[in-house]
Amino acid sequence: MRIALGVEYAGDAFEGWQSQKHGRTVQDHLERAIGVIAGHPVRLHCAGRTDAGVHATAQVTHFDTSSVRRNVSWVRGVNSLLPPDVAVLWAVEVDDSFHARYIAEARRYRYVLLNATVRPALLARRVGWFHVHLDVEAMAKAARHLIGWHDFTAFRAAGCQAKTPVRLMHSAQVTRDGDYLLFDFHANGFLHHMVRNLVGALVYVGKGAKPPEWMGEVLMHCDRSLAAPTFPADGLYLCGVDYADRWPLPGNGRIIAKPRLPMP
Amino acid sequence: MRIALGVEYAGDAFEGWQSQKHGRTVQDHLERAIGVIAGHPVRLHCAGRTDAGVHATAQVTHFDTSSVRRNVSWVRGVNSLLPPDVAVLWAVEVDDSFHARYIAEARRYRYVLLNATVRPALLARRVGWFHVHLDVEAMAKAARHLIGWHDFTAFRAAGCQAKTPVRLMHSAQVTRDGDYLLFDFHANGFLHHMVRNLVGALVYVGKGAKPPEWMGEVLMHCDRSLAAPTFPADGLYLCGVDYADRWPLPGNGRIIAKPRLPMP
Repeated sequence: MRIALGVEYAGDAFEGWQSQKHGRTVQDHLERAIGVIAGHPVRLHCAGRTDAGVHATAQVTHFDTSSVRRNVSWVRGVNSLLPPDVAVLWAVEVDDSFHARYIAEARRYRYVLLNATVRPALLARRVGWFHVHLDVEAMAKAARHLIGWHDFTAFRAAGCQAKTPVRLMHSAQVTRDGDYLLFDFHANGFLHHMVRNLVGALVYVGKGAKPPEWMGEVLMHCDRSLAAPTFPADGLYLCGVDYADRWPLPGNGRIIAKPRLPMP
Repeated sequence: MRIALGVEYAGDAFEGWQSQKHGRTVQDHLERAIGVIAGHPVRLHCAGRTDAGVHATAQVTHFDTSSVRRNVSWVRGVNSLLPPDVAVLWAVEVDDSFHARYIAEARRYRYVLLNATVRPALLARRVGWFHVHLDVEAMAKAARHLIGWHDFTAFRAAGCQAKTPVRLMHSAQVTRDGDYLLFDFHANGFLHHMVRNLVGALVYVGKGAKPPEWMGEVLMHCDRSLAAPTFPADGLYLCGVDYADRWPLPGNGRIIAKPRLPMP
């Protein structure tokens, strides 16, 4: 049978999602723990393979098992075997046509940026930081150029292995909450480093180096060298994955857990 | 001259505030960094000597120096020499009658407790956790017994070195925000482990093991063995120190920075 899991983790504690020989990734820790509870080796597939340093409040993953366990065992049993910075939030049985990655209809990412003169301490590695005051109105206006079907080559990392650079951006918002800026992106999929590159470009606009319309021009020219530097992973959270309503997942398949602001 | 500093830190990254031979405390890191900017060794005095694992959003400390520097140097210069999990938030010159510890009129602590079946991952070591649903009304009622002048011997650690166990509790509140419980204490001073012991006792009431009135009885009997176990440091934040209005400190000396909830 196939089991789907919701997973939360602090990205700074691991070397990314994807399994590596050194075994210090989220996937490695989860596969070892689930393997103990299942009584046999398991292989995980996830909705979004986050890089080192990228956090998740709502990662979705699945595995196949021949072992019958209660859902609570897949949650609490597995959690008792995991390091403190990763936890399974829920578990549900799904049929064999479910696939955490291939049938996900959309992903949601939030980037949390501290916009203050003093760097973060309590939230070091959990929020990005920019010390010059940013114009949130200009950034929100620039972000609107991203909505719709676009070739996102200008915001794609050199090593990106996606078959096509075309994605459908459902929404792209920039809002301010006190000293924090929230960048919320909802798209059918994301290219490698895409959110971090988008944030870098939006910050260029926010500090006044470029007008909001520049975002549309960069997008149109499909040239990475015209855009801005990649922002650090620190403030990036995978905070939602959308599946069709028919799946027996929390929130009717709209699994959203946006990180809220942790500091005054 | 005397300089007062506001300091923020993640307690899980250090072995408490107070200087130790191994040098891995908040005070050790700050004294080394400030010493470099000052050009001579400095000695810090703080408002609340937090234990290992206890966080601060609004610690206040002071030191004496013969070196003239701009306030921005005491902030950004020092921060450039500190580890990522501690930062100076502000610096102001004060006269020699200021003392971060002795003239502080009150301290404020917040304990953040995740009350959910699944343990925290993103906030491991930053929030406490209790898996059984807690009755916040009963806990709030119990907390009201703590307000006023009391002998807090029942909530004092064995090794506590305070001269007297009597403290004035200005307010003691328990509130719920979604899956999180917030315990807010405002008192003229706190004994060693006092907040963690109070939270332990309030959780006893919250889970129904004791009625709210029991809190008043424990307090009155002045016997630590009648109270509940000490809660872990994980969710504890020093989030405010009060000084008289005449001091040129942020917020008229009411330096409050309560940690907000970081997760949905």
